[in-house]
Amino acid sequence: MRRIYLAGPDVFLPDPQAQAAARKALCARYGFAGVFPLDGGVDLAGLVPVAAGLAIARANEELMRGCDLMIANATPFRGPSLDAGTAYEMGFMRALGKPVLAYANVVGSYADRVAALSGRPLAHNVAGHLVDDRGMAVEAFDMADNLMVVGAVAASGGELVLAGVPAGAEHTDLTAFEHCLEQAARLVP
Amino acid sequence: MRRIYLAGPDVFLPDPQAQAAARKALCARYGFAGVFPLDGGVDLAGLVPVAAGLAIARANEELMRGCDLMIANATPFRGPSLDAGTAYEMGFMRALGKPVLAYANVVGSYADRVAALSGRPLAHNVAGHLVDDRGMAVEAFDMADNLMVVGAVAASGGELVLAGVPAGAEHTDLTAFEHCLEQAARLVP
Repeated sequence: MRRIYLAGPDVFLPDPQAQAAARKALCARYGFAGVFPLDGGVDLAGLVPVAAGLAIARANEELMRGCDLMIANATPFRGPSLDAGTAYEMGFMRALGKPVLAYANVVGSYADRVAALSGRPLAHNVAGHLVDDRGMAVEAFDMADNLMVVGAVAASGGELVLAGVPAGAEHTDLTAFEHCLEQAARLVP
Repeated sequence: MRRIYLAGPDVFLPDPQAQAAARKALCARYGFAGVFPLDGGVDLAGLVPVAAGLAIARANEELMRGCDLMIANATPFRGPSLDAGTAYEMGFMRALGKPVLAYANVVGSYADRVAALSGRPLAHNVAGHLVDDRGMAVEAFDMADNLMVVGAVAASGGELVLAGVPAGAEHTDLTAFEHCLEQAARLVP
């Protein structure tokens, strides 16, 4: 049975094991085994915080090596972009040559969210580039997030699934996640 | 000559070619060839925005495959974490088995920055975990950013270099970058 690494900040939700169970049940319905980042079974006893963090990082990389593909929750997290750990893992999986699928429970472009963050429309600089309030260019490729992230999904033969969800359900609504499973079933039958 | 992929949101600065030149000059002083993400020479003529973004993503992945190691600017970008594209590229390079070094022109922990974002100290939930104002857990590993990012540098034999810099110089000050070059010279002589 093909194994799907379930990347995302879902591990930070109040009951991550419930999140894992819900996602794994959906994976099973499509004939896949879901692998949650907490499945590494790392023993953190006696480790100082930094050592514990590094042990989790190593375990997650091993879990990814043992999976066949990825579905990532790329919903914006504490800013206009996805969670940094999730972005890292998408790059990792892509370099391993394994399909990377993803969803984001948000509508609107990355540029829209950067504008919202500064509280006013984005300006153009003298070169004609869209810039944020610090004068740094904002990607204007009609994409939902950074082009590397969108590019990984496209190069995998998939499409980043976007869905509007009720406020508060950004990291728990699994409608878009299930659309990724449909893509997975087509791409990795 | 060993080639270093220079990952980071420096490409978004007002004069990215000047940034590239400054970084490449420092690389040369340590016996390395610096490769900037804009060096791919992608022809975007006639491409609609999404196609242009995807072409850049492919070109950046090819540039990384052609490099021997990475130095990433992991300075927080539009939020408490590093730029999403940079995080993606760190994961990509790490999975290729190539050393990933990084710096952040910031002091203070990730948890401190999440607290600053909400404007008040972080709370603990009933399970004793540090949580943000949405109730999502905040990594408490005494790390400067997400554990995958810090873990990649540690697994490469390096150490994330942190430096306090004057406000406004977060993406241009190259003191910490040069410390990464010193690590590179030791690790990939």
